[in-house]
Amino acid sequence: MAPPSKVTLTPICLLVYVWCFGVFMTLAWGSKARHFKWEVDYMYAAPDCLENVVMGINGQFPGPTIKARAGDTVVVHLTNKLHTEGVVIHWHGIRQLGTPWADGTASISQCAINPGETFVYRFKVDKAGTYFYHGHYGMQRSAGLYGLLIVDIEEGKKESFHYDGEFNLLLSDWWHKGAHEQEVDLSSNPMRWIGEPQSLLINGRGQYNCTLAAAHNSNGSSLPVCKFRGNEQCAPNILNVEPNKTYRLRVASTTALASLNLAIGNHKMVMMEADGNYLQPFSVNDFDIYSGSSRPPTNYNRRIFLLNTQNRINGYTKWAINNVSLNLPSTPYLGSIKHGLTSAFDQKSPPETFVNTYDITMPPSNPNATYGSGVYKLEFGKTIDVILQNANALNANVSEIHPWHLHGHDFWVLGYGEGKFSKKDEKKLNLQNPPLRNTAVIFPYGWTALRFVTDNPGVWAFHCHIEPHLHMGMGVVFASGVHLVGKIPDEALSCGLTGKLLRSNNHN
Amino acid sequence: MAPPSKVTLTPICLLVYVWCFGVFMTLAWGSKARHFKWEVDYMYAAPDCLENVVMGINGQFPGPTIKARAGDTVVVHLTNKLHTEGVVIHWHGIRQLGTPWADGTASISQCAINPGETFVYRFKVDKAGTYFYHGHYGMQRSAGLYGLLIVDIEEGKKESFHYDGEFNLLLSDWWHKGAHEQEVDLSSNPMRWIGEPQSLLINGRGQYNCTLAAAHNSNGSSLPVCKFRGNEQCAPNILNVEPNKTYRLRVASTTALASLNLAIGNHKMVMMEADGNYLQPFSVNDFDIYSGSSRPPTNYNRRIFLLNTQNRINGYTKWAINNVSLNLPSTPYLGSIKHGLTSAFDQKSPPETFVNTYDITMPPSNPNATYGSGVYKLEFGKTIDVILQNANALNANVSEIHPWHLHGHDFWVLGYGEGKFSKKDEKKLNLQNPPLRNTAVIFPYGWTALRFVTDNPGVWAFHCHIEPHLHMGMGVVFASGVHLVGKIPDEALSCGLTGKLLRSNNHN
Repeated sequence: MAPPSKVTLTPICLLVYVWCFGVFMTLAWGSKARHFKWEVDYMYAAPDCLENVVMGINGQFPGPTIKARAGDTVVVHLTNKLHTEGVVIHWHGIRQLGTPWADGTASISQCAINPGETFVYRFKVDKAGTYFYHGHYGMQRSAGLYGLLIVDIEEGKKESFHYDGEFNLLLSDWWHKGAHEQEVDLSSNPMRWIGEPQSLLINGRGQYNCTLAAAHNSNGSSLPVCKFRGNEQCAPNILNVEPNKTYRLRVASTTALASLNLAIGNHKMVMMEADGNYLQPFSVNDFDIYSGSSRPPTNYNRRIFLLNTQNRINGYTKWAINNVSLNLPSTPYLGSIKHGLTSAFDQKSPPETFVNTYDITMPPSNPNATYGSGVYKLEFGKTIDVILQNANALNANVSEIHPWHLHGHDFWVLGYGEGKFSKKDEKKLNLQNPPLRNTAVIFPYGWTALRFVTDNPGVWAFHCHIEPHLHMGMGVVFASGVHLVGKIPDEALSCGLTGKLLRSNNHN
Repeated sequence: MAPPSKVTLTPICLLVYVWCFGVFMTLAWGSKARHFKWEVDYMYAAPDCLENVVMGINGQFPGPTIKARAGDTVVVHLTNKLHTEGVVIHWHGIRQLGTPWADGTASISQCAINPGETFVYRFKVDKAGTYFYHGHYGMQRSAGLYGLLIVDIEEGKKESFHYDGEFNLLLSDWWHKGAHEQEVDLSSNPMRWIGEPQSLLINGRGQYNCTLAAAHNSNGSSLPVCKFRGNEQCAPNILNVEPNKTYRLRVASTTALASLNLAIGNHKMVMMEADGNYLQPFSVNDFDIYSGSSRPPTNYNRRIFLLNTQNRINGYTKWAINNVSLNLPSTPYLGSIKHGLTSAFDQKSPPETFVNTYDITMPPSNPNATYGSGVYKLEFGKTIDVILQNANALNANVSEIHPWHLHGHDFWVLGYGEGKFSKKDEKKLNLQNPPLRNTAVIFPYGWTALRFVTDNPGVWAFHCHIEPHLHMGMGVVFASGVHLVGKIPDEALSCGLTGKLLRSNNHN
């Protein structure tokens, strides 16, 4: 993947878009349950001025912004209005404490919602912060199924920092080729790479083949400058700001592939929060955003090494972790583990590490991997270290960035570095004040060390957040304390072997 | 719709394509059960020389040809390898006597098969004939999900006519725009018509923007002549025939939209069979084939008039029958009726007729229709007449051809004519030797009268076989003798309210 693309917000016209939400919701500020009725369907839109089919919610693209307060319960009645496709929605960054079935991951936490059917997502938003939601089935995120989820501080409490106004920036990447065709491309033999996105979108709006910044761009541009009458679907709105005021920017990136860099020309920004966790504030000119902090336990109970490699299986290009490419089963793990359905997925645990002679600087000497659907079973209430190890891809001198996202938990980022993780790196890990995140990057040829506590019963995906990479197998599954999970709604278990089990005592 | 397109097979090179099937099947000639293991997935192919995504079976497009003998049981283990879509397959022309759950119609006979899951279609092919199969969910037929189903005469028996060889011709139409996008087009407000197909295919092969026949076409052509090296995916194979021999052509059309006309230059053809029923042979120069003959009961027990109109609902363009546009429910009828789940669909029966003052020569004076999911409940063992009445569409001076296909039954075509069906037409109906079919056309501004006996317990679709028209609501549903239906496999009931019912006595 290319280095982060620059999304430069110039000072002359703070090119942040104002989006008017016709959200169908019962907004009862001060109350605890916030109900939303959503319908997912395809629609035509022109996100980057070129008309295309997008996946929308209640006729809107991007989907409606959810606003809630910390401690609230969000209730989304999600009806699938697609003609032949299932759908789920993942609430990115929400830990789903006690509600693992509401995590919105097909094959892991629930059965996909069938066309015409409604599933009720009911979960608590326990921590203030800027979150987002997106499809987590096939490549429905690339198709445009996403939106913001903003959790304000509890009623009656105040943020520790002052600001005069706030704006939301939902960043995404956009292809002119449909997500279905992209799926076929990636699953073809030989694999057809989807390439870089045609456009970058802010709040669902971008400009294809022209630039807004060219007139203000000191290093010039060969692209024409975008001209708008102002009423185009892709026309930017000027975000009005007053001098000498402080604005809170809530930035979320649902990109399927792109790593971004955000700057406001001639202005500094102060970083206050990341992944729903407050930061020790620090000032920056710009910051990287990939498709995705507290006293830690100082010791770990188990350490898992995960080698990230690009591989081949029967000629198909895949991504693999310790040589296993994730092949999601048709029965979601949460139900199959809870009900002891051992034929639902590979019962052998995936490898805990990789051979220590592996040369991460070279293409794999044996590129062949295997498909796997095994699960890392983690003891409940333990501290787990994960060392993500990057390596060379199939082609020489290629190693890519991978933003890894953990469901159901935040993790501490203990450190990252170049080359293969070794004993000397061990000593440099930050056990004093590591940042708390739910997404962390491994850089090319590098490693990243994470720590988390298995304090949330359920089955949780841990995967590269680049959607095409996940589609090609780049993920693992953690299961922990599933026996402590309460009653799983039947609707989450209606497919595959759990569906069969639940139907088995009945006869028609 | 335009008049039938001409597919002219010239005498110089009998342009019929030979297709090599790598069918994965246990072909045990002489035995009674024929097993097939199929996987449905998207793949790239170049049906008309332009590469595109198609829906294939076991990596083949069109799908494998099933060959069986009358009296055999066909068993297809169908695994859905699509990423996010459900799938079903309808066995067009097979009556499914005693196995209504194997008819392969989503929302009617079964729940769509979820990604990763397998459904077993097991049904008897009781009558020799040329049949075909195709997707019956959303517009998966347009996506390329189809193939031939050939039932030979019983072992030891001989056809009453002689032939020296036989060839299969599977005709279809092909768009460069994907079926998903076509669905969105048709469901848009204002509706976006998909237009005529880019190519016509024979056995999955056609030539876009050039013609094979130009060199032999007396009336000239502005298109270039196709040139092939011979190894192209879309290159025609010359079908070798010997002089003074007789060949059996098995012709099936799975077109989504197009009506076709087939001729062999300077040769006559003798029609022997249609829709799996032998005909009194007759000779033709060419014949029409739309997207789909015995002594009849001479009296009917019930007569239903079905007015075919194009309408609007909230600005969306729809097709409606007696002003009701079919809106399929998420719970298949077969299960919901059998289990008395009255909330699964509209309990009010749809209208039996239309106002007799309706002017079929004009656009509807009130174009507004309603959505409906009601069912015509037909008493078992009765004779039903259906008078299909065509009319003007939304635009003046437009009336289209509609090929109506009945599931689960053959019907007698008692007659057809121009204008509104009247008492004088009644007298002209052919009650002596009407042809027995499962598909019949109503011509523009015309009527067609059909008769069938409700001798097959189940729930059966009766609809226009033009896939975009069905997608826009042009169909009705007949239910008859559902109390006589045996045990429905649980897998056919796993979705919607039947799924919920079957799970309801269990707890996790």
